[in-house]
Parts: sequence; C-alpha cells; structure tokens
Amino acid sequence: MDDTVLTSEADLIAVLAPLTAGAPGALGLRDDCAQLSPRPGFDLVLKCDPVRAGVHFFADDPPDAVAWKALAVNVSDLAAKGAVPVGYLMALSFPEAPTRAWMAAFAHGLGEAQSAFGCHLMGGDTDRAPGPLSIGITVIGEVPAGRMVQRGTAQVGDALYVSGTLGDAGLGLQLHREAREGRRDLRDRWGLTDYQTDYFAARYLRPQPRLDLSLLVRQFASAAMDVSDGLVKDLERMCSASGTGAEIDSALIEWSPAMVIVMRQQPELFSRILSAGDDYEILAAVPTDQMAAFEAMARRGSTPVHRIGRIVDCAGVRVMRIDGTEIAFDRKGWEHF
Amino acid sequence: MDDTVLTSEADLIAVLAPLTAGAPGALGLRDDCAQLSPRPGFDLVLKCDPVRAGVHFFADDPPDAVAWKALAVNVSDLAAKGAVPVGYLMALSFPEAPTRAWMAAFAHGLGEAQSAFGCHLMGGDTDRAPGPLSIGITVIGEVPAGRMVQRGTAQVGDALYVSGTLGDAGLGLQLHREAREGRRDLRDRWGLTDYQTDYFAARYLRPQPRLDLSLLVRQFASAAMDVSDGLVKDLERMCSASGTGAEIDSALIEWSPAMVIVMRQQPELFSRILSAGDDYEILAAVPTDQMAAFEAMARRGSTPVHRIGRIVDCAGVRVMRIDGTEIAFDRKGWEHF
Repeated sequence: MDDTVLTSEADLIAVLAPLTAGAPGALGLRDDCAQLSPRPGFDLVLKCDPVRAGVHFFADDPPDAVAWKALAVNVSDLAAKGAVPVGYLMALSFPEAPTRAWMAAFAHGLGEAQSAFGCHLMGGDTDRAPGPLSIGITVIGEVPAGRMVQRGTAQVGDALYVSGTLGDAGLGLQLHREAREGRRDLRDRWGLTDYQTDYFAARYLRPQPRLDLSLLVRQFASAAMDVSDGLVKDLERMCSASGTGAEIDSALIEWSPAMVIVMRQQPELFSRILSAGDDYEILAAVPTDQMAAFEAMARRGSTPVHRIGRIVDCAGVRVMRIDGTEIAFDRKGWEHF
Repeated sequence: MDDTVLTSEADLIAVLAPLTAGAPGALGLRDDCAQLSPRPGFDLVLKCDPVRAGVHFFADDPPDAVAWKALAVNVSDLAAKGAVPVGYLMALSFPEAPTRAWMAAFAHGLGEAQSAFGCHLMGGDTDRAPGPLSIGITVIGEVPAGRMVQRGTAQVGDALYVSGTLGDAGLGLQLHREAREGRRDLRDRWGLTDYQTDYFAARYLRPQPRLDLSLLVRQFASAAMDVSDGLVKDLERMCSASGTGAEIDSALIEWSPAMVIVMRQQPELFSRILSAGDDYEILAAVPTDQMAAFEAMARRGSTPVHRIGRIVDCAGVRVMRIDGTEIAFDRKGWEHF
C-alpha cells in the first residue's frame, strides 16, 4: 500500500494518463480539451450522470468498484439507446487529496471498466473541494445516424421487456450496508449463503451495463431506457414521454435465484424490491410483430430478456396481480431530489 | 420573488427545458441521453470543468452570474482551441432544493450566456447531495477536421500573445469579497470609483470568453490555451507540453485603465496580480512571420491582443524587468488541488 498523498493535479494526471491509450484525441491529457473525430454516418449519444459518495456509493467502498460504477451507470444509458461507447470525460472532486494506493486502485477499476465497455478516457478535470467525493462522467457513444432509440416513442400495443433481473442491487445495498456496520440481521433472517450475499452486493457495487443488448434494442425496440431509479418510476417516464400508459403482469417478473429465496420468505417485500434503484437493466418496448425475432436473437446472447407487460392506451402504470387486482406502491422509485 | 421550493426533478427540468430550443438532439430533456449529429468535415472539441460554490463562486452570488460563469469558463477553453461552441450538458447538484426564483434567475443567466456564445443546453442531470452547489458543464464545440489548436505545439521563436488584460478578475474577487463582508478597505485605499469597482467585480463574476478571437487563433497560432489559473502557471503548462521555455517582458503586459490606478499605487502587487486566476484570456504562440497578419486581423475585432514575450529554447518561464533582471514569483497561479 503506497500511502503517499497525491497533492498535485500533475500527480493525478500521471496516474490517469495511461487510461487514454487508444484515444488519440485525448492528447495524453496534455491539453485543456479533448478532440473527437466523429465517424461519418454516425450520431453521437451523450450522457452525464455524476456519482457522489454518500449518495451513489459509500466513501470507503473499494476504489476500483467506485470507478467501475461511475462509468457503468453512464454506459448503461448508452446501451439502452442502442449506442456503443466511444470515450468519456471525467471531473473528479476530492474532499481531501487521495493516496497513491487509492488512486492506483481507482485507475485500475476504470481500466477494467474501459476494457469491458470498449471506451477510453478522453479528458476531464480534477479539483479539491469541500463535500463528498464526486465523480462526474460524461460518456460519448455512437449510433448509426438517426438510430438513437428514444424513450418517448413507445406505441400502444407494444410488448414491454426488461433484461436480467430486478431488485438485486437494492437488496445488495441493504446487505452491503449491514456488512459495513458489522451486522448480519438480514442475511441471517433470509438464511443467505456467502455466495448469495456476495451476488447481491456485487449487483450494487459492480453494475453490468447491458451492452450485449444494445444492437438488439436498436434493431427491434420502438422505445427504450435503462432502469436505474426503479421499474415503475422509470416506466412512468417512458409512458409520460410517449403519451401512453403501461400494464405490468407481476407474475411475469423474473427474479434471480437468490431473490427467489428472499421473496419466498417475505413476499410482502415485492413492491419495495421492485421500486429500489440501481438495477441498470434495459426496459424496452417492442412491437408485437417483432417479439419472436427479438426473443430469438436475445436467446443467443448472454443477457436474458423477459416480457413483463405491455403499453396501453390509458395513462399511468399499473402492476397487476395474477388475479387481476392492482398492486399499490407507497414509493415508486429512487428520488434524486 | 417566487419562493416556492422546487422539490422534484420534474420541476427543475420544466425550468430548464426552454434552454434546449434550437437543439433538436436535446429532445426537450425528455430522454435520458442527448443526440448530436456532427457536421461532416468537423471535429468535436470537448471540455468539462465544473464550478463549485466556495471554490469558483460564492453561494450567494446572483444566480444569473453563477450560471453565466459556469458556461463561460468552459466556452473559454473552446475559444482558445479555435473551436466554436455547439451545445453542452449540465450536471447540477444542490445541497438543498432551490426556490423557483433562484432557478428562474439561474436559467435566465444560462439563456443569456447561450445567446452570447451561440450554443444550447442538450441534456444533463440534477440531484440533491450534501456539499456545495456544484455545476458540472461539459461543453461541445466544433472545428474543421484536424484543426484544433493544441497547447503542446508551440515552437521556439514564436511570439507570445495574450488577449485583453490580465489580473482584473483576481482583484475583482478581492473587491467582491470585501463588499460581501460590508467592508471597503481596498477600494478606499486605491480610491476606486463605483465604476472601477464594478468593472473589477464584473471581470470576476461575468468572464467573457474570447470567442471573437477563435478564428484568428485557428488561422495564426501554433499553440494556444486559455489563461484561467494565472499567466505564469498556464504558460508553464504550454511550455512543458511543447518542450520549450518562455520569456515574458513585464513592460509589455497591458493593464486595464482601472488596474493602472492600482498598480501606480502598489507596484509591488505585480507578481500577485499576474498570478491570480480567473482571467479567461487567450494565450497564443504565433510564428513571427504571422505576427503582422495576426495583429492586423485582431485590430478589426473587439478584443485587443498584446505581444508579451516569446517562446525560447531553455526550460521554464521567466518574467523579466525592463532592466533585464528576473522577477521572482512566490506563487505562480491558482492551485486547484
């Protein structure tokens, strides 16, 4: 562990500059600005979603996980737009100067995320300011011109799909928090193994943007977005932007094997689990005549997709029980504000 | 004054959405991502430089000035790269929910800055988090392909130019701070009029990116950057990136009329004034055979440029008195870190 404190911007740049290899327009972080030569025939897709200690992660989380998450949450948005990441800018704000060991681990996590997502650091800014550690990433992706998948273009009748499984990260946050506090009430109550506990925590700490679905979303979805603030809340946004409503069939929602164990014991957690944030799954509206092709193509990939409902003509999102009654939500999702 | 507190992200988006008029790819802030169709034959130039209350402005500064400055400091970088702004993303983080009046004034200031700089809001993010108010802008500009002016390409022998006048904003910060505290020691010591005091404060609160020089920089400069952390510090960066040194002739540095009054009374302030930050002027290295054309073209515009020295063969930046002795600097510029 190198506990040297990095007290100059030049020190930080030296640690981060290797992450620009492969992005000539980053100029090795030796300029004020980054340069990007867009590929002819492609649009750029832009997203900036900062993460902050105490809000999106814990200040003492492993620095490589913090770095991974900071990039992953932005790349997740690109995946849902049918885009492929190209590069990113990063504004780091530290309440106090980090150690060399912390920065090295942070840069390592970024490097892993870059390799996994296929993009490069292009530029950014570092400063020291009071307040929580803040990592402000602006990610740049590309799609063939005119092909960005919007969220406001869902059509009445479309089938609704989500990728992977929902709620795991929300439970992961609970389990991660109690482990940090040296408690194990929840994991004992549910009788979770180490493996299951780690699975939940990893879904919180290391979200996996569904880039493998990006092409399918572009090919088949009429509208899409990522689920980061809770399914119902995000689906309401899609419906509101599209001028539609939606109905979810609760029996169709797929749970992870670990979640099935929890839900069997506490089925009343359903609405809380479904409205937790940090899922980073893709929500897509797919025209019914495309369903078979979409499902068939998705089966060839590594991330499953599940049909959970449909876009309807009347406003609002309703989640239905198998008996046709509606499930009430106290809280529909994560409130940023 | 509408003191209603805006407690939802939707409220904030409603105030900000009109700023996207003219940027179809912003989708009226109704999507997660922004879309940008780059013009064929152009490169994009990207910069993210967040500003934070207590560091770059005071939390109780007029919200329209805060907004202006947040965008201006980023656009200033583009101007020095020979680029023209196209759009920007903005991540807002509030320690507490703002009032409608605050947000309206903030949006008004952004609107003024957008009109002045010729760009549009394209997307972003808002959240509430502990810590100072933070405005993280990522600005996107364009230059003809391959024509971004770098800072690491200065050549030995080039003449060094700066635009406008230096040090005004640094003094403006001092005067603004004492006015906030109900004092007037400095302005009385220097016998400044209201007009002069306001001039200094405006240079701090409302920096003017030198976009009118952007084309000339692209046409004539071998290297350029904006001066935001103090002339000597920023020039050292240019020299270090270019593998050169530089010599400044202190007698060639141009001061504003108000600054002349201060400098006559306290000439010993020279090095402190020259190493203050927040100038947002352009520093450009121009080959000697281009000097006459550069100066002639600049005279036709609204921002004067002044030759202050030259790029030399030995490392480091030296600031020389008229008698050929070197001026020492205790502190070369603003330390972010």
